[in-house]
Amino acid sequence: MPKIAEIIAIGSELLTPQRVDTNSLIVTEHLNLLGVEVVTKHVIGDDRERLTEAIRRSVDRSDIVILIGGLGPTEDDVTRDSAAAALGRKLVLSLEQESVLISRFRRINRPMAKINLRQAYLLEGAEAMPNPHGTAPGQFVSTDRGAVALLPGPPRELQPMVENELVPRLRPVLPPQVIRVRTFRITGIGESDLDTLIAPVYTKYANPVTTLLSSTGDLFVHLRATAESVKQADALLREVGNPIAELLGDRVYSEDENESLEMVVGRLLRKQRAKIATAESCTGGLLAARLTDQGGSSDYFVAGYVTYTDAQKAEILGVPRELIENHSAVSEPVAAAMAEGARRKANATYGVSTTGYAGPDGGTEFDPVGTVYLGIAGPAGTRVLRVRYGGDRYRTRTLATQGALDLLRKTLPK
Amino acid sequence: MPKIAEIIAIGSELLTPQRVDTNSLIVTEHLNLLGVEVVTKHVIGDDRERLTEAIRRSVDRSDIVILIGGLGPTEDDVTRDSAAAALGRKLVLSLEQESVLISRFRRINRPMAKINLRQAYLLEGAEAMPNPHGTAPGQFVSTDRGAVALLPGPPRELQPMVENELVPRLRPVLPPQVIRVRTFRITGIGESDLDTLIAPVYTKYANPVTTLLSSTGDLFVHLRATAESVKQADALLREVGNPIAELLGDRVYSEDENESLEMVVGRLLRKQRAKIATAESCTGGLLAARLTDQGGSSDYFVAGYVTYTDAQKAEILGVPRELIENHSAVSEPVAAAMAEGARRKANATYGVSTTGYAGPDGGTEFDPVGTVYLGIAGPAGTRVLRVRYGGDRYRTRTLATQGALDLLRKTLPK
Repeated sequence: MPKIAEIIAIGSELLTPQRVDTNSLIVTEHLNLLGVEVVTKHVIGDDRERLTEAIRRSVDRSDIVILIGGLGPTEDDVTRDSAAAALGRKLVLSLEQESVLISRFRRINRPMAKINLRQAYLLEGAEAMPNPHGTAPGQFVSTDRGAVALLPGPPRELQPMVENELVPRLRPVLPPQVIRVRTFRITGIGESDLDTLIAPVYTKYANPVTTLLSSTGDLFVHLRATAESVKQADALLREVGNPIAELLGDRVYSEDENESLEMVVGRLLRKQRAKIATAESCTGGLLAARLTDQGGSSDYFVAGYVTYTDAQKAEILGVPRELIENHSAVSEPVAAAMAEGARRKANATYGVSTTGYAGPDGGTEFDPVGTVYLGIAGPAGTRVLRVRYGGDRYRTRTLATQGALDLLRKTLPK
Repeated sequence: MPKIAEIIAIGSELLTPQRVDTNSLIVTEHLNLLGVEVVTKHVIGDDRERLTEAIRRSVDRSDIVILIGGLGPTEDDVTRDSAAAALGRKLVLSLEQESVLISRFRRINRPMAKINLRQAYLLEGAEAMPNPHGTAPGQFVSTDRGAVALLPGPPRELQPMVENELVPRLRPVLPPQVIRVRTFRITGIGESDLDTLIAPVYTKYANPVTTLLSSTGDLFVHLRATAESVKQADALLREVGNPIAELLGDRVYSEDENESLEMVVGRLLRKQRAKIATAESCTGGLLAARLTDQGGSSDYFVAGYVTYTDAQKAEILGVPRELIENHSAVSEPVAAAMAEGARRKANATYGVSTTGYAGPDGGTEFDPVGTVYLGIAGPAGTRVLRVRYGGDRYRTRTLATQGALDLLRKTLPK
């Protein structure tokens, strides 16, 4: 059984509509590396009773409990008192911490207010964790099932304390264990279809844990394996990940958590020294914006033409007027002519086009709102894909951009 | 006694080192506007037992409990089950929700997997809250001391549901109190400068409560007045809001909370039946994308040219080669020529241009990374603004787009 942890971030400012707790991310990262799973996070205001109650419950349920913030010298810094009450331990003045505090104030040449002495009190049996960047020492308490730690709230005090003080003290308390992760980034399939496809594989395994995430046409599958060694964890990731990779096939555009679809396309274009130009109607510049999102994109991006009127499609891209009159601007031949026109006009290796009805108004019986034609013209010829998206204007435009980038990815040599 | 709330965000992905819960910020903002204080937030993984236990405790302690996420169709979406267990209520298939689901899938032209039917189950006695942006309806349950609500996790689904469905249902549950809000949307000033400017006014008043919010060049000042009547609340908003409006002057682009800068520009263009074209370099299509963000933008948007190379600037926009050679592509005369070229090429009333160094590489001693020239050509002539932004590529591109739209707003007749 892997050890489990809870994190409690303390501070009324973290309960306003403006602030999120990001300290817990640093702590989570290090706990995961030690094989500890974070099962719950809490944010609690500067409220003695609520905090005491929360600490008591967390300590009952979980092996490791990390308290962040509320270690300042003022009346509303309640973490020390609440932890003492929850753990049934006294707070004891540490003479060593008192002299650390006094010499710190002497060094920064400021008088020490009497209330600062509060920061020299430790929980009975706690070890102080030095804080070179602030006045509040951290505290580490071993318990029967694990540990409780008190950490300062300012990130520049917290981060070095986690790395230099907390991790070395936690390691001996924990069974040797590693966590390894494998990620698939996917497009071109809906979330429920994705789940239907791969659930038969992943539901057979409790380890690795499989998670699906989705945001407007962009999906993630995360596998997280826990084992005693890197080798074992990687074997688990192969055992479950390889059949999933096979089922997903070409829908996987990257196995790098941080590589977006536009980054993949940029990488493939750069590799073959190809140039790209876009011709957009319904996506209105979004496709060009994504292709130029990365620094250095001028290596492959030449030009983007947002031709919103028929006249512009004709004048800039050379789409024949009759083609538009006979087929309408939202049609397969016009998408093809737009892609070819962009390629020619920019003297690029590839031209990509979008034309469709993003809504809310417009559309025809055959091509209702949400219909988009995606065109791609390249050395091997021209290809058009007709797609139909559901949802609002934002969704149609985003999915059309995603669809065009994915078509490009599949067309480019790997 | 004000009512108190707890928020539980559900999803194992929110317990990884990569992700924070930001949905609770939206919910907190609206609860605060209703006079409800959020006292604790939790993040819990896709774990039936832990979640059930957490909901049970929250409902015991707090008046309002908001559950966010875990309403998807898959096995690891456990919120419905856990809420049912915690509240001691059955889950009942809603025939109405079933037909909503079926018609949604029909509309987006995709087959409905059988597991999607899970999303049509409601807690006994719950009201469904419609979700026009996704498949999972929200749920609202009245309780003795307040309410429990289930909301979908994707922010684009959550936000409108909070505003349009949750708030109206919560209001009758809460003690009567009039809260009136006045909003200023502002650009062209930094957050700390804004605060320095208006703090002398607003800090004199505890009511209305003044909040500053900012997201990459887009700022909000919210005044929130609490009173026993609309008349009293509005008088408070005038007393504090009018001097603030005077200090801000033309930096305020809208007093409508939901009117973005591109909506203001679109409104002004439509009013005078003017047409617009864009010529972009560093913003790579983002400016065109924002101008075409609204339905019906073809009323005023004609064309966008993303000219990433010197050759394209010359060929498409007619920027003289010598101008680029003598001044470089990132310069005042080139920005002017780009705006004029776009105006001419598209036969538009106005042409707007951006050229700059978005980074991370590039720049010169005189024009370091972050420097952008914004051009505007119109019936009254051409104007160029040189601006210097700090931060990364994303920030520079976003701020340049914002700057160009604001320049356009100030140029257009009111």
